[in-house]
Amino acid sequence: MGARQPKNKQPETEKPGKHASGTRAAGKQDTHRQDAGALLNTLKPLYAMEMQGVDGVIREMTRSNVPLVSEMAQYIIACGGKRLRPILTVLAAKLCGYEDGDRHIQLAASIEFIHTATLLHDDVVDESKLRRGAETANAVWGNAPSVLVGDFLLSRAFQLMARDRSPRVLRVLSNAAATITQGEVDQLVKKNDLSITHEDYITIVAAKTAALFTAACEVGAIVAGKSAKEQRALRDYGQHFGIAFQIIDDVLDYSAVQEQLGKAIGDDFREGKVTLPVLLAYQKASTAERAFWERTLGALRQQDGDLTRAISYVRESGAMEEAAMTARAYAAKAHKRLQMFPASDIRKALEAILDFAVTRPY
Amino acid sequence: MGARQPKNKQPETEKPGKHASGTRAAGKQDTHRQDAGALLNTLKPLYAMEMQGVDGVIREMTRSNVPLVSEMAQYIIACGGKRLRPILTVLAAKLCGYEDGDRHIQLAASIEFIHTATLLHDDVVDESKLRRGAETANAVWGNAPSVLVGDFLLSRAFQLMARDRSPRVLRVLSNAAATITQGEVDQLVKKNDLSITHEDYITIVAAKTAALFTAACEVGAIVAGKSAKEQRALRDYGQHFGIAFQIIDDVLDYSAVQEQLGKAIGDDFREGKVTLPVLLAYQKASTAERAFWERTLGALRQQDGDLTRAISYVRESGAMEEAAMTARAYAAKAHKRLQMFPASDIRKALEAILDFAVTRPY
Repeated sequence: MGARQPKNKQPETEKPGKHASGTRAAGKQDTHRQDAGALLNTLKPLYAMEMQGVDGVIREMTRSNVPLVSEMAQYIIACGGKRLRPILTVLAAKLCGYEDGDRHIQLAASIEFIHTATLLHDDVVDESKLRRGAETANAVWGNAPSVLVGDFLLSRAFQLMARDRSPRVLRVLSNAAATITQGEVDQLVKKNDLSITHEDYITIVAAKTAALFTAACEVGAIVAGKSAKEQRALRDYGQHFGIAFQIIDDVLDYSAVQEQLGKAIGDDFREGKVTLPVLLAYQKASTAERAFWERTLGALRQQDGDLTRAISYVRESGAMEEAAMTARAYAAKAHKRLQMFPASDIRKALEAILDFAVTRPY
Repeated sequence: MGARQPKNKQPETEKPGKHASGTRAAGKQDTHRQDAGALLNTLKPLYAMEMQGVDGVIREMTRSNVPLVSEMAQYIIACGGKRLRPILTVLAAKLCGYEDGDRHIQLAASIEFIHTATLLHDDVVDESKLRRGAETANAVWGNAPSVLVGDFLLSRAFQLMARDRSPRVLRVLSNAAATITQGEVDQLVKKNDLSITHEDYITIVAAKTAALFTAACEVGAIVAGKSAKEQRALRDYGQHFGIAFQIIDDVLDYSAVQEQLGKAIGDDFREGKVTLPVLLAYQKASTAERAFWERTLGALRQQDGDLTRAISYVRESGAMEEAAMTARAYAAKAHKRLQMFPASDIRKALEAILDFAVTRPY
């Protein structure tokens, strides 16, 4: 993706020792992350060629006769980050022994398009200004073309499925797309609602984030023609991974240094999203703290200094560590589901990418 | 659709003699329309059962575990109007002799979902408040859920294609969806641009509106297993129909009485859209009139009374009649492409629906 990266995008590997939290737990996480990152780097050649292929398909399919469409599509694709979901598809296919053909590459690109379309629309919905250190498309071009180019990317995703010609794949991915949008609306409806339960939160996260991780892994198994058992294992791996990933993302919104996270910290707080760290802090809150949460998130009446207070309440309550532990429990489940496959470098890569993703700096 | 209609929706048949324009040409159009409408009414039983089936599929697929999703989806579907595109799919399939099966019904619903998704997103993009006499979804619920529920409906459309299991149909409809969004962005980019040509305008209209008419008809031929020749004829019919339909829609924005049109008149003007009636009026404009168009549409500096002036310029220049003539020329081409099929009541219905649509009151 080199040339298409926005100039102010963050480098993908951070230097150690710059983390916001200096606790021992975080230090241990650092080491884990460095180990996982180093392992992943040594394993990258296993799927690097396929990922070049994915980028090629993406380049081809972001072209349009309408110059603004290409320009915006390429911008947002470049902002999209690490290509986590397409990597999962490629690795899942390879884990299942898929060798001759490029279906996993085409479909990995399709999945990245679904992801990117939802990013574009999420930023419109959330009125976000910053994503991965770059201005969001809606901040640069406005809401109207962002909505339309999101639709364009979603259509491109389905054009790629049409090329693939598999009704099964279409079913899995169209189901995922429908699930994601319902999860997003569910989240929108439950904004400002401090009475939601841990289960409500997981239901939202499973739909809005994990559904695409799940589908990305399942599609890999499908193109390889693997049995239902292997498909189910990879689906579970994807689902648990996706939930863990989103929990960490929500934790980071109360912990990461803005320059490291590359997105505006405190976005969830300002929007009144009740995420797991908040839920956990709220459960343990004193009467005064509860009143704070009810005013700032429940009634969305916020004033200067509230974000700092929110961050300190979340940190001091131990909610950060507890949420991170929940994420790690999901990651462990994901890890376990891979064990039915024979040990291999590909399996190692799927384990390392999971470890790397759930030990992001916070 | 009975119960799901918003209360203030317009009745589908207007009483004659209430039209804004009292010219003889309009009078003649009235008679044509009444004839086409009457004929269509006698032919309705030919496809009424299928359309009930389409409504059933729509009801089924607008359901969601997230109540707001169902509520909004059902609202916007009810506002969507006359089910023109699904009727075309059903009739095209029947014209091609499709008899055993309900693929045309399932896919007609899929096409209506694509249409409805674009309506939802268009209203967000255009900031419209009124559609077919009812408040738009974005006016009732805001932009955020409108964007997401649009995505939901688009996903549902592809879930229906997954059920159908035909890669060919998926290709046609995903291509149409991609074309529509590019047409919409093209239109957005060319807003306020009085230098666009007649061809530019037709290119936009062919993409943003006619692509779905085209696909709706082609899909009918595909499910019936008809040869490439018949598929092409029906595709052409759909394309010319769609272009004619959009031109009339653009004419109505400068002519219809608001209560009749059921949408806010002058929307295109206020948004700075350069549509065919404006293009034609601008070509014939005096220096003073050109300055008016450049200020109001080019620079989008509008003041009280400008819409009235715009309407009178468009009407007095003969641009209304000229645009309507262009629409009728496209309708005639559409009509001609049906003649390769043997005469039948189904063919008559396809002719009548075309006549009815291009002689809408203005």
